[in-house]
Amino acid sequence: VTSATVIGGGLVGCVAAIHLKRRGVDVAIYERYGDPRQTERRTRPSVNITLCERGLRVLCRAGLLDDVLAISAPAYGRIVHAVGGATSFEAYGKPTEALYAVSRNHLNTVLLDSAAAEGISIHFDCPCLDVNPATGQVLLAGRGGQRWIEAGCIIAADGSFSTVRSKLQRRDRFNYSQHFYDQGYREIRIPAGPRQTPRLEPGALHFWPRGDFMAVAFPNTDSSFTLFIEMPFTGPVSFEALADQPAVRALFDKALPELVPFIPDGAPDFLAQRANSMVTIRCAPWSVDGRVLLIGDAAHAILPSYGQGANAGFEDCAVLDALVERHGFDWATVFDAFERQRKPDTDAIADMCYRHFDELRVNGLDRTLQRRRQVERRLRELFPDRFVSLYSMIAFSPIPYAEAWRRHLAQQAIVDELLSDDAFDFEPDRRHDGVLAARLARALDPRPALA
Amino acid sequence: VTSATVIGGGLVGCVAAIHLKRRGVDVAIYERYGDPRQTERRTRPSVNITLCERGLRVLCRAGLLDDVLAISAPAYGRIVHAVGGATSFEAYGKPTEALYAVSRNHLNTVLLDSAAAEGISIHFDCPCLDVNPATGQVLLAGRGGQRWIEAGCIIAADGSFSTVRSKLQRRDRFNYSQHFYDQGYREIRIPAGPRQTPRLEPGALHFWPRGDFMAVAFPNTDSSFTLFIEMPFTGPVSFEALADQPAVRALFDKALPELVPFIPDGAPDFLAQRANSMVTIRCAPWSVDGRVLLIGDAAHAILPSYGQGANAGFEDCAVLDALVERHGFDWATVFDAFERQRKPDTDAIADMCYRHFDELRVNGLDRTLQRRRQVERRLRELFPDRFVSLYSMIAFSPIPYAEAWRRHLAQQAIVDELLSDDAFDFEPDRRHDGVLAARLARALDPRPALA
Repeated sequence: VTSATVIGGGLVGCVAAIHLKRRGVDVAIYERYGDPRQTERRTRPSVNITLCERGLRVLCRAGLLDDVLAISAPAYGRIVHAVGGATSFEAYGKPTEALYAVSRNHLNTVLLDSAAAEGISIHFDCPCLDVNPATGQVLLAGRGGQRWIEAGCIIAADGSFSTVRSKLQRRDRFNYSQHFYDQGYREIRIPAGPRQTPRLEPGALHFWPRGDFMAVAFPNTDSSFTLFIEMPFTGPVSFEALADQPAVRALFDKALPELVPFIPDGAPDFLAQRANSMVTIRCAPWSVDGRVLLIGDAAHAILPSYGQGANAGFEDCAVLDALVERHGFDWATVFDAFERQRKPDTDAIADMCYRHFDELRVNGLDRTLQRRRQVERRLRELFPDRFVSLYSMIAFSPIPYAEAWRRHLAQQAIVDELLSDDAFDFEPDRRHDGVLAARLARALDPRPALA
Repeated sequence: VTSATVIGGGLVGCVAAIHLKRRGVDVAIYERYGDPRQTERRTRPSVNITLCERGLRVLCRAGLLDDVLAISAPAYGRIVHAVGGATSFEAYGKPTEALYAVSRNHLNTVLLDSAAAEGISIHFDCPCLDVNPATGQVLLAGRGGQRWIEAGCIIAADGSFSTVRSKLQRRDRFNYSQHFYDQGYREIRIPAGPRQTPRLEPGALHFWPRGDFMAVAFPNTDSSFTLFIEMPFTGPVSFEALADQPAVRALFDKALPELVPFIPDGAPDFLAQRANSMVTIRCAPWSVDGRVLLIGDAAHAILPSYGQGANAGFEDCAVLDALVERHGFDWATVFDAFERQRKPDTDAIADMCYRHFDELRVNGLDRTLQRRRQVERRLRELFPDRFVSLYSMIAFSPIPYAEAWRRHLAQQAIVDELLSDDAFDFEPDRRHDGVLAARLARALDPRPALA
């Protein structure tokens, strides 16, 4: 029997293990921390996870969709809160197109239960300390001390700060970069009001773009919200400047007054946390000799601006599974094909995540961007099957990330052209439809219409 | 007494230690390997080091110039060997402008002797295993086992694969990248002929640009040469393809026939080595809390195409010393100012080194590049004090690397303009001098004429 060892029992490790098991591989998972189903697991801080099309279709194929949707809160669009309190709702897409916000721990619980039900052995409190790609062995720590085990094929799903990757990093010709975003984040919980009334409109993500910084509220299934605040680490408006409760209170009073009544006891929660950093990680090659493969955040950690981290990781699992179906257990071939197919896409989403943070922070504040959005909106209305926003391609389609970026650039060339034409009228007006259609056809062909 | 610990007794470690000692700091050096003056030291493979203006002026100020020149072989220009055997000599600059080729071990010996003569304690076979920036302690291994020592200020000059940096890499918000060039290199020695006659013209570096790959011969003081061969790791023309002696011989017969008689016993030397990789390393921040500073290759390893690695490292030492003179032992201020001043320059030379390898490989083969060189040569002849080639700025001036690149771009705008003018005559011709002078003045002002 072919065997495999999955390092890391997080979201991606569980799904990768389930796929392998169903292909007849003898799989074991080794997880650094304790079982989150039994103990308060020490997790890295994280925004709520938002599952979208890409991630959900993988979970659906694995038969996990109902279980996951049961613990998720849908968001059908974004509500933008302008300075002064005015709000505007922007639907994400068609009524069936929604994001599903879920807590990392709840989702992990569902996936671990499913992995266990498949007969996968899961070992907790077993940090992987080293790998030897030449022998296919893994050094594990655990209650009984350290031991090398015969690992078979090693799938490293041990996250952004992957131990396996840190070992591969010492190999000759291993390219690696870790780049921290110059802004950080903190989270605060907004509990439900009396009789479990949500304090904010449910069914949406809430955004407070404030130029220098930004707040986002994610719905939870218990009617609470998780408020994510993103701002520079240092400078005039920064976490460093929010050194005491009066400073925090002053910021909320000025920029987020509608939230003040909902935050219990003012700001102590906020002050108790240090600001968290966000890292982008790229590396190559992702595998060694068909023995070890990096997958998920271990291979390509990205910023959370698009909420794509878990979705990209699940997509990795589906791509890997399709390649196993095609090439069998010829791991060297499978791993090489996996990286060749997948690396351009994960590089593309990494770049797009940087851009998107900047856009989110100024959403509704930047006049040039507003004008651009207006033109895009009109194009979408006129040509719903041809002109698809970058956001929709990322969140509500399975179009590979790199291809989504290419199509976006082609579309933006049209938008640029329209924006530079002063005489052009972007209000709903059928006069220009022929021109627009021709321009779109020119820019989007010979690519097929989006599915 | 202020104390400092220098990690690494290589080129940069020695010079940094000498500077600190002369400022009254109590300095100790801890070196991973044994004393290269007593044993055959295990060194990483390296091309001969070429010292130029930047490095020599630092050694001169330290009173080491004569000792270093005594073990160096000067190169006053480059001799390019075309396919077919024709050669052309290109002087590096004025007759006094030369590169000085020296073996890393010889240079290290001179610097270690000098450091010891200053009263610096040098501990060999003492790898640094860890640093604790919070306490200013360093963990050392050695004959007596491991021990933590009080380090004072820690200067990490432990090279491209710095242990200190690998510890800093785990800190939050430490940006880091290691990128390997997609070509590798091997070295062969070309011994002197009978009666110590050099086999190639002395006083020059020799280049065999072959498009796909390149060979460079560096003169040694014993009339031998070190031949550096750079080519892709894999592909039709590659180290992988040179799998046996007939393959190596065939390559030499075809592309480097004039060297065949000089290489003893054909190719076995060549086959015995694996191809070496070349890495570019960038990171930030270079220091932590005024306790630890990365310097030299540990902070910014670059490709060897310009021969700038050691020169940039020595320049680091001089910049650091000038900042100590200015700010005293306020290490936090000194280290911050050092990085602010130095990082843009080392980033610039890192980028330029990539470009230069590509240029060297096609030198004389690419017609567009040839035409450009011709225009540049004429501009240099006409305006020797205004138009200075990028190579000269890097190798024969103390102009900061980033500034050299900015001036180069301004100059290239003029060259582009001239190249696009079909009517323009680039042969020596006084008719156009006024036009050229005006263009140069426009592009180079308000910067002062180069010193």
